Amino acid sequence: MRVPAQELNDEFFRVLCKHGYDIEGAKLSARLFTQATQDGVNSHGLNKFPQLIEYISNGWVKPEVKPRSLYTEGSIERWDGQQGPGDCNAYFAMNRAIQKAKETGLGLIGLRNTNHWMRPGNYGWQAIEAGCIGICWSNTAPNMVAWGTRNRIFGNNPLVLAIPHNDKPLVLDMAMSQFSYGKMDIYHRAGRQMPFPAGYDKDWQVTTDPGAALEHGYVMPTGYWKGSGLSLMLDLLAAILSIGNSTREIGQGDWETNLSQVFLAIHPGGENQQEHIATVVNSTIKELLSSMPIDTGGSAPRYPGQSTLATRKKNRQLGVPVDQEIWQKVKSL
Amino acid sequence: MRVPAQELNDEFFRVLCKHGYDIEGAKLSARLFTQATQDGVNSHGLNKFPQLIEYISNGWVKPEVKPRSLYTEGSIERWDGQQGPGDCNAYFAMNRAIQKAKETGLGLIGLRNTNHWMRPGNYGWQAIEAGCIGICWSNTAPNMVAWGTRNRIFGNNPLVLAIPHNDKPLVLDMAMSQFSYGKMDIYHRAGRQMPFPAGYDKDWQVTTDPGAALEHGYVMPTGYWKGSGLSLMLDLLAAILSIGNSTREIGQGDWETNLSQVFLAIHPGGENQQEHIATVVNSTIKELLSSMPIDTGGSAPRYPGQSTLATRKKNRQLGVPVDQEIWQKVKSL
Repeated sequence: MRVPAQELNDEFFRVLCKHGYDIEGAKLSARLFTQATQDGVNSHGLNKFPQLIEYISNGWVKPEVKPRSLYTEGSIERWDGQQGPGDCNAYFAMNRAIQKAKETGLGLIGLRNTNHWMRPGNYGWQAIEAGCIGICWSNTAPNMVAWGTRNRIFGNNPLVLAIPHNDKPLVLDMAMSQFSYGKMDIYHRAGRQMPFPAGYDKDWQVTTDPGAALEHGYVMPTGYWKGSGLSLMLDLLAAILSIGNSTREIGQGDWETNLSQVFLAIHPGGENQQEHIATVVNSTIKELLSSMPIDTGGSAPRYPGQSTLATRKKNRQLGVPVDQEIWQKVKSL
Repeated sequence: MRVPAQELNDEFFRVLCKHGYDIEGAKLSARLFTQATQDGVNSHGLNKFPQLIEYISNGWVKPEVKPRSLYTEGSIERWDGQQGPGDCNAYFAMNRAIQKAKETGLGLIGLRNTNHWMRPGNYGWQAIEAGCIGICWSNTAPNMVAWGTRNRIFGNNPLVLAIPHNDKPLVLDMAMSQFSYGKMDIYHRAGRQMPFPAGYDKDWQVTTDPGAALEHGYVMPTGYWKGSGLSLMLDLLAAILSIGNSTREIGQGDWETNLSQVFLAIHPGGENQQEHIATVVNSTIKELLSSMPIDTGGSAPRYPGQSTLATRKKNRQLGVPVDQEIWQKVKSL
């Protein structure tokens, strides 16, 4: 079924207010949940919303708190998220980075003790709307196997890179695992194999069987050793730059909280650079989109963010597709 | 055979002076070539040196020029490499980023119209030696297939992330292809298959056969769509932030030149952060190194940069292993 975006937004807002958010926080979070769902990322929009409310009810996410400044050093600021809502904290941090970028060309914010930021791409789109390049990442609880080991000790640490460019911005939103848990679950239910190695089975053999990989969460890093190494570096950088926890320390808790995140905004340059940016991005996108697809009849090549805009437009016109059961649940919260 | 590092350095210095470098440039470049070779990266050290001299002889690399400032905007500087030596230009740019980081917490340098920077990791080690976090990347000529297409239009755009940490710094030096050309060549000569898909054969079928992938340079991005997307974003960011060329534009030249690069240095924080950094990094490294290897009898897990330090130490004591033929060639230049 499809629901108008405004109806989703109103419902999120109502539930958040009921669960301890102030008006400002509820407005922002409702908008971010709506945006994710409208953009087709239901897994980190509507479908994730009931879990947030559960976390709030357990006292694991504190809806009333705001980030607290730790200290500022030139273009770098460190903030403590104080276990507040991860989406509001992240939005706040990217906003600080954007302000800094507008003052000094670039701004970097370290944010510690925050919660799951829901859809990572939100903060890339936020930077783009402010005319800035946005780069941000989060660490997570250990949910991925470190390359070369039999230990699930690394996080899938999502990374976002966003480039503003008139009506064709680019947003790359990638986790460090080859496949998301959500994607593997869909294949598993459909009885399909993943197209590339997805993880390890219980005997630590590389497998494309999503059920086997999901059984113990032995998930494969993207690019094998490369995604594993990148995950480690992003984790340590987040912990260092926020004076916060690493994935290892997050894993010692009873649930996933006190995450560390980094937000970097870069002003792409003044008026005189706009023409160069447009030329470079346009010509590269054009070359990609006019490339021959690898499979005859396969889907056309696309750039990161391209399908998001198409989905957004469609869902704005037709309403946002939702899982009826989850939607009813949210309405009952 | 093994050669003392000092002898390598002296020989590089002699040849560079003979080919138009000033004393300062020759000293720096000789040191960087020696360092790469001593660290075991012969492919971007000694073995790459004859090609550099060839490029200089062709007038493709201009040994005498220095980077020219384009403009400064707060913590961002843009420089033009003026087709000078890629290693000296990159070292200069990372040095500027480090100076900025020491002043304002972080510094970002865009460098355009430069040449191949040889071993990417050099500039990560450079940041570490200055006590800074270093992040840098370069675009390249098109040398990799864009995911979902039959076109070799993306670069393998190497990315470096470096974290200073007493005697155990971490340096990740990764290109966006799953395997380097050098690695595939070694497997090909040994008649071995790559352990994971390495590219496409002439019929555009995914292949682990290095010979088939190398035939037309149909090289696979790391993590398939993920490395492809990351390559695109790094390319465009480099071109935008340096007001320089994208991979597409580089590919229109007769040889690989006028590359675009980004250098970001971050001051990791003052005295009061050092203890936190040491704790976080030590405990994560310790957990990784004590993990069970995936294959009984397989090599132990390691962190990025770990084997570099071991190799460096060994080669300092025993001399640097070199290909005798290439070493003779360099001595004759």
